[in-house]
Amino acid sequence: MRSHHCNELRSSHIGETVTLIGWVNTVRDQGGVIFVDLRDREGVTQVVFRSEENAEATKVSHKLRDEDVIQVVGRVAKRLEGTANEKLGTGEIEIVATELNIVNKADVLPFQLDKELSNEDLRMKYRYLDLRRPRMNRNIRLRHTITSAARRYLDDAGFIEVETPILSNPTPEGARDFLVPARLNPGRFYALPQAPQQFKQLLMVAGLEKYFQIARCFRDEDLRADRQPEFTQIDIEASFVTQEDIIKLVEGLLGSMFKAGLGIEVPQPFPRMTYREAMDRFGSDKPDTRYGNEIIDLADVFGATEFKIFRGTFDNGGVVRAINAKGFAGVTTGQMNRLNEIAIQAGLPVKTLAFVKAEGGEFKSPLWKFFTDAEKEALIAKLNIEEGDIVFFVAGSRDSVSTILGRVRLEIAEMMELTKGSTAYNFLWVVDFPLLALDTETGKWAAVHHPFTRPNTDDVPLMEGGRYEEVRAVAYDVVLNGYELGGGSIRIHEKDLQAKMFEVLGISPEEQQEKFSHILDAFRFGAPPHGGLALGLDRIAMLAAGEDSIREVIAFPKNNKGADLMSHSPCQVDFKTLREIYIQSTYKEKKD
Amino acid sequence: MRSHHCNELRSSHIGETVTLIGWVNTVRDQGGVIFVDLRDREGVTQVVFRSEENAEATKVSHKLRDEDVIQVVGRVAKRLEGTANEKLGTGEIEIVATELNIVNKADVLPFQLDKELSNEDLRMKYRYLDLRRPRMNRNIRLRHTITSAARRYLDDAGFIEVETPILSNPTPEGARDFLVPARLNPGRFYALPQAPQQFKQLLMVAGLEKYFQIARCFRDEDLRADRQPEFTQIDIEASFVTQEDIIKLVEGLLGSMFKAGLGIEVPQPFPRMTYREAMDRFGSDKPDTRYGNEIIDLADVFGATEFKIFRGTFDNGGVVRAINAKGFAGVTTGQMNRLNEIAIQAGLPVKTLAFVKAEGGEFKSPLWKFFTDAEKEALIAKLNIEEGDIVFFVAGSRDSVSTILGRVRLEIAEMMELTKGSTAYNFLWVVDFPLLALDTETGKWAAVHHPFTRPNTDDVPLMEGGRYEEVRAVAYDVVLNGYELGGGSIRIHEKDLQAKMFEVLGISPEEQQEKFSHILDAFRFGAPPHGGLALGLDRIAMLAAGEDSIREVIAFPKNNKGADLMSHSPCQVDFKTLREIYIQSTYKEKKD
Repeated sequence: MRSHHCNELRSSHIGETVTLIGWVNTVRDQGGVIFVDLRDREGVTQVVFRSEENAEATKVSHKLRDEDVIQVVGRVAKRLEGTANEKLGTGEIEIVATELNIVNKADVLPFQLDKELSNEDLRMKYRYLDLRRPRMNRNIRLRHTITSAARRYLDDAGFIEVETPILSNPTPEGARDFLVPARLNPGRFYALPQAPQQFKQLLMVAGLEKYFQIARCFRDEDLRADRQPEFTQIDIEASFVTQEDIIKLVEGLLGSMFKAGLGIEVPQPFPRMTYREAMDRFGSDKPDTRYGNEIIDLADVFGATEFKIFRGTFDNGGVVRAINAKGFAGVTTGQMNRLNEIAIQAGLPVKTLAFVKAEGGEFKSPLWKFFTDAEKEALIAKLNIEEGDIVFFVAGSRDSVSTILGRVRLEIAEMMELTKGSTAYNFLWVVDFPLLALDTETGKWAAVHHPFTRPNTDDVPLMEGGRYEEVRAVAYDVVLNGYELGGGSIRIHEKDLQAKMFEVLGISPEEQQEKFSHILDAFRFGAPPHGGLALGLDRIAMLAAGEDSIREVIAFPKNNKGADLMSHSPCQVDFKTLREIYIQSTYKEKKD
Repeated sequence: MRSHHCNELRSSHIGETVTLIGWVNTVRDQGGVIFVDLRDREGVTQVVFRSEENAEATKVSHKLRDEDVIQVVGRVAKRLEGTANEKLGTGEIEIVATELNIVNKADVLPFQLDKELSNEDLRMKYRYLDLRRPRMNRNIRLRHTITSAARRYLDDAGFIEVETPILSNPTPEGARDFLVPARLNPGRFYALPQAPQQFKQLLMVAGLEKYFQIARCFRDEDLRADRQPEFTQIDIEASFVTQEDIIKLVEGLLGSMFKAGLGIEVPQPFPRMTYREAMDRFGSDKPDTRYGNEIIDLADVFGATEFKIFRGTFDNGGVVRAINAKGFAGVTTGQMNRLNEIAIQAGLPVKTLAFVKAEGGEFKSPLWKFFTDAEKEALIAKLNIEEGDIVFFVAGSRDSVSTILGRVRLEIAEMMELTKGSTAYNFLWVVDFPLLALDTETGKWAAVHHPFTRPNTDDVPLMEGGRYEEVRAVAYDVVLNGYELGGGSIRIHEKDLQAKMFEVLGISPEEQQEKFSHILDAFRFGAPPHGGLALGLDRIAMLAAGEDSIREVIAFPKNNKGADLMSHSPCQVDFKTLREIYIQSTYKEKKD
């Protein structure tokens, strides 16, 4: 139905007769001559209708409307001197139409495609129109390009894609599952998988050695922020591998994806940081290293201080730390209030953040007067405080200080627009995560990752000795510009170590059997050492596309109520249908 | 953890020190020397433990059991004269072990891996062991290889893979849907998609032009025969294309899959046959053309017959047809009974199939005496009846004769093992399907494919004229060796034609709105001409693997009750969890 796509024709085609098909992107009448920008998936070409070429077609062209589907036959011609469009690949030529075939008329659209639309509900209701915008078209194609690159990379590396069940089982100790009534097993339910975790480990027991899957996963959570009830992960598991093998594989994988999608070479190896260092320096296990403003420990500045608050903190085993927000002394009152609010949310036990501001040649601070001259001098040197800077202090336990200053650091970067226009892709590994964390509510130790995560061999004696909080896991996260792209671990494959782990977690043999029976069974029959990782594809696509919501890289996303406004999903189902699957709704609709 | 895989070492490696890791495939003691066949994903290598090399390792090796995971360091050595194994790539060498590291001991397995196991429940319960068998390993990898080839082919052809929602909407006029209670929308339900049909058409409206997806689909059906509640299809849709374009694309696609998976060149183009011809010649819309035994029309043999039954059939507008089962005159009574049974199931209105058997130089038949000599002669010539043949006749309406003889033909082929050992891959297109079929129960016309399927342009006047049964659809199926691999159609994109179609189907505007509102909405805004197809990936993988059940090419299939015996899915869920998603079970378990 076409001889060329709408991005193809150049001066070298002048004189040729071509056939194009696509959508009327714009149409304008210049003194009876009709100019149409014809759009297809690949681009735009200008088409001109003149009465002297074909009176009938030109007459019809007067009635063209945006988004009509038309087929045009015409001659490629050079545009008039001075009317070339340099922004367009096809900008030097136009098609002088000799035939016009209206393939399908379009009604007036509910919104214009060439304007950004802030009403997201309207965008979602007419998603098929929203997706026609060049930006969305680019995003969907970019997602395909990087996904395709990921598959080729893993395929070439000997990984085998295996489809694991969607009609699956509840995830022990996970988030809430979506459930599916099983009609053939009345009273029973499938659960949609939160991840193919157990299946991928079973595939290792099955001797597959290298597995991957671009897997759809599901979580029935309250959809705050940028979450979707279904999402996609690049799921990887391999046998006979170390953390080093997985890290190298994933660096190559992400490199190939960004190369394919954006044409950039990601430097490898990625920098690495221990969890402890990430928390100490950035107050986050997914630090954004595109800017500084790092957290600085002030033990050597205030170690001998007599300032009561700092003194008390040190005496209680706490820390005093600060960040110097370079050039942010002009912070407004509103911003200051916002920072205080965030710090309080993050656990600051007082109402305001302590600060020192270097402004107009002096240091403004409610604290300044409590410091000795030597402390002031050491502080200025340590934090490199210069005119225009503002320093924020927090005193307290190491963990809470990290959390608070980490949040403050992020917010300041946002306020100062430190990453605006940045084209940096700062990949980073965070390693040596803790294996266990004390659940302060229950007083029980819980697995930070999951109960099959392997402890660092050097730390197994600490486990025996009950020093659980010091035990490092062989677990790793990969981070990009402050976003966690994914993470994984090497797993426990030995019965004895697994038993020890369950003991620490306080999971009784009965509970083990109930929740993990088939995987524990499987592990009896020659489980190889194995480990893996999962990457969030939606988020990778989002970052590659330069978007700030995963909804912009999902063709048909749900809104924050889990609804698809276009297809009216979820929908009502009559009680007879429900009865056939042995359930009934307990929800009573409120009367209006 | 290894220097080589277990399929790699050859005579050229003799003298090298290598490290292998994998599973103990077999172990045998030959006078104190232990021989282990070590297996990994890629193959098997023989390892020898001798006391003179390492007394400790050899002592330990005595305790090795099948499926222990071990790591071995050793020297590659030539096997003793006369002990080479020609069947094995590594059969000329063995590893003389110098170190043995027991990575993980295995308990005694519930079944042996080197024997075929007929107890499918046991295979499914221990699927992770079942998958270790070479055959299953090969199947899972073959599935990956052909899937990967399909993706590369479509990617290279400019098709964009788009993930469409799994949490979706009920399929209008489809099979039964799996439903998912939507907690955030109390009283409402998602449905799992039976196919991404509407989404793919909407992507065409969105201007994507070329879409594909290897898509998980779901149908809550009673699982007779070889069905799975979830299955995978290669889903394709394109704009501005004709049936010819889709056919050419899919031939290339299937060619690339079989080339990648089996190394064979599939001849292209595939033969084509109209639906009418397929029914007339083979009594099936998915004929197996690997053997003859075609259905032959006998109008010119019996056109003037006075044999009452045939005469009556002709006078009522019916047909008399037969198949000659060459060389099947030795059919047993049991087989004959079975054929009669099948014919009756297929609609034969009498208790036995009429036949003529050429045996011992004479024609045995209850009918023979009713035929004239001219009829006998014409019949023998027409059907080429020779000694040892048996001919089955059916008289009746054209459709029912086709159905009955089609089923009989298949069963005879089965009984005669006509395709046993065949390596033929007979691809075939069946085209010109009817657009509409009369539902004899409701007396209403129904869409054979779906309501958006395009009628053949030549036949639109027949539609206007009410001759619905004669209208051909632009719909096509691709068939391999008697299995439907998939099918599709060019769609209706014009409002008027779609309205006409709904009118014929008796779907009121209200019902249209209720069932198809968003797609009808979308079609108002510049829908391009488009069409597509879907291929059953499980079935393609099954046929490529030479298996006769799709369960053999699915890593974790469900049994015919929709249950996964390994992971105990589906499972019971407590009523509190159900209450949180606003449902309760109506199933009352029977007391024992």
